[in-house]
Amino acid sequence: MLESGTYVFEKPLGMRDLLPDLEKKHQWIKQKAAEGMGQWGYQFLSTPTLEYYETVGKASAIDEERLFKLLDGEGRTVVLRPDMTVPIARVAASGLKNETLPLRLAYMSPVFRKQEFEAGRPAEFEQIGVELIGDASLHADAEVIALMIHLFKSIGLDAFNVTIGHIGIVNALLEECSQDDQVVKRLRQRLYEKNDVGFREEVQGSSLSDEAKRRLHLFIETRHLQLNEALDTLPLLFPGDKGHFFKDHLMELIQILNFYNVMDVIELDLTLVSHSDYYTGIVFEGYGGTSGFPIGSGGRYDELLAKFQRPAPATGFGLRLSLLAEAIKENATSPHRECVIYTAKTIESAMKRALQLRREGRFVVLQDAATVSDLEAFFLQFKAVHDYR
Amino acid sequence: MLESGTYVFEKPLGMRDLLPDLEKKHQWIKQKAAEGMGQWGYQFLSTPTLEYYETVGKASAIDEERLFKLLDGEGRTVVLRPDMTVPIARVAASGLKNETLPLRLAYMSPVFRKQEFEAGRPAEFEQIGVELIGDASLHADAEVIALMIHLFKSIGLDAFNVTIGHIGIVNALLEECSQDDQVVKRLRQRLYEKNDVGFREEVQGSSLSDEAKRRLHLFIETRHLQLNEALDTLPLLFPGDKGHFFKDHLMELIQILNFYNVMDVIELDLTLVSHSDYYTGIVFEGYGGTSGFPIGSGGRYDELLAKFQRPAPATGFGLRLSLLAEAIKENATSPHRECVIYTAKTIESAMKRALQLRREGRFVVLQDAATVSDLEAFFLQFKAVHDYR
Repeated sequence: MLESGTYVFEKPLGMRDLLPDLEKKHQWIKQKAAEGMGQWGYQFLSTPTLEYYETVGKASAIDEERLFKLLDGEGRTVVLRPDMTVPIARVAASGLKNETLPLRLAYMSPVFRKQEFEAGRPAEFEQIGVELIGDASLHADAEVIALMIHLFKSIGLDAFNVTIGHIGIVNALLEECSQDDQVVKRLRQRLYEKNDVGFREEVQGSSLSDEAKRRLHLFIETRHLQLNEALDTLPLLFPGDKGHFFKDHLMELIQILNFYNVMDVIELDLTLVSHSDYYTGIVFEGYGGTSGFPIGSGGRYDELLAKFQRPAPATGFGLRLSLLAEAIKENATSPHRECVIYTAKTIESAMKRALQLRREGRFVVLQDAATVSDLEAFFLQFKAVHDYR
Repeated sequence: MLESGTYVFEKPLGMRDLLPDLEKKHQWIKQKAAEGMGQWGYQFLSTPTLEYYETVGKASAIDEERLFKLLDGEGRTVVLRPDMTVPIARVAASGLKNETLPLRLAYMSPVFRKQEFEAGRPAEFEQIGVELIGDASLHADAEVIALMIHLFKSIGLDAFNVTIGHIGIVNALLEECSQDDQVVKRLRQRLYEKNDVGFREEVQGSSLSDEAKRRLHLFIETRHLQLNEALDTLPLLFPGDKGHFFKDHLMELIQILNFYNVMDVIELDLTLVSHSDYYTGIVFEGYGGTSGFPIGSGGRYDELLAKFQRPAPATGFGLRLSLLAEAIKENATSPHRECVIYTAKTIESAMKRALQLRREGRFVVLQDAATVSDLEAFFLQFKAVHDYR
């Protein structure tokens, strides 16, 4: 027996096992997602779990203290990859550097972010995502948003919505309204937290000009407006052409999304700020289920690839597999197991039967009765028992 | 750009990317394997990448210096799992402790073993495997061997064979022939290396009795015998009943494997020693392709579960995904991509066409022509281009 009694069955903080029922659900979602991504022309790749801290750790948008760091066989500092977007940027600029753009890449991989306190939050979670690299147009933004929605529908997600924003609007407005980096940072944090009250208080308590305060109050109110009203507010938020530019830009995106026939699940939130600070344009988040966390999020990041010496516009999204699994009902489609039970005398005919059933695609346990101490309990797990005793 | 130029495109020692062509092959193998394992009644589960060193690191058969160690969020020592058998034993004894035995469990997961020198050997590699827990009979050994062969066939592996041995024979013979642990250890190492010459030299140069030398020379010669001849040698290797016991035991296994109709790919090697020191009975290795490494290996480990306070016999195997991929030809079955190319004026009809093709299960990139700088080069990657320009 292992020595340290208390450790024997334990897992590190934020780590968990997926037992067969939940794993089956995860596998089913992954299979449906892989079908959808494949049919939209995305090609899967995989990257190592460990990456150099200098390369991927520093370029990632994840806070330093949340990185799992260790030494590799040569004594260099490596990290457990905290996201997939940065490793894929590395590959796009190295192993795939001779491929013609645009590239459509997909992945399903665990990522790792250290938890310091137990709050039920996972330190390892599987992400399913795509990156569309080398297409600066709104067609690319629309495609990845429509694909995310297609995946939600293909796994039978009942009620979900996708919120769209543009990080350029947030950045332009905050920077025009305040030259104080600390104020901008705090305001951005309130937006990230979707804390309207905190945002208003921050604005009210600041030494910003009355005009800046007017614009910021107007801005936060757009969260409660219908899509067209919010768009109409843009020219009021920005003096000059900028507001019209953003309005036209978003309207063009909406037009393309209309062609995809997905506008019924889309909401506009001009104040949307996502977790990743490498976003540069259209950003979006998907919500479904009851967790309150986004089940998927993404956006345009036109500057990341340049860090890997292959400047290229890009957009993409990542879905959280475990949150998707929580958000959907049990899938009735997955087959249940059957059992062929035999004795030493009947093994040959029992085996033939089992092999035949398996060839029909059925899920068949072949079991010698002599081994099982409690046959009644054993049989409970099967849809059918083929008895050769 | 990232600062440290030399690191920008590098990956840690033993780590690699799987670009789309190879990843597609891996995915295809995993899908076929999942089908086979599912149809044989195995249930998938997954366990965390990180496990406590105290729990899984110490119980694993992997050398201490090959473990990737780090600290978790609470400052405890954790390891990147070096194998899957030990984590599954942990789960069988905790999360699945109330399930009726036997349990049939399956996994597909990367495992991690540190490399100290670059020898093209991976430090991260994906294992596909099963564990059959709670069945001490030869029916269980035969089932996992037959399943491994079924998986090899289902992925179209042309030429392969499976070598079967029994670690109890090796242990009994070495211990009967020498009381010197160092001699036993060196002889076992020569067997593990399949180094017949080295084994003979070790025996010859030792101070063992003439009778012990006779038995050990006879033993190593069984490697070159036909199956029945090797079985007949067993009573000559062991005085008393032991040789007959081992012979009858292996013959019973062979009889069951005959029912599975797989004996044409099976060889017997009484001297087989596997990497894992937790094996206690029947052991086996699968060879195919040209790498010289086993593409799969497994065996019975009846004492591991007791370390997790749920004593139970068990057997299983693990396959090396990357070696399987090297051993099979390109699979012609995987679909190739098509492209629907459009302009701003034709987007609506192009999109309808793309959605229709995708609904038929085809793999379709939908691309605005305005984005692509070199259309001719871009089209080269597609089986067909549907032109809406």
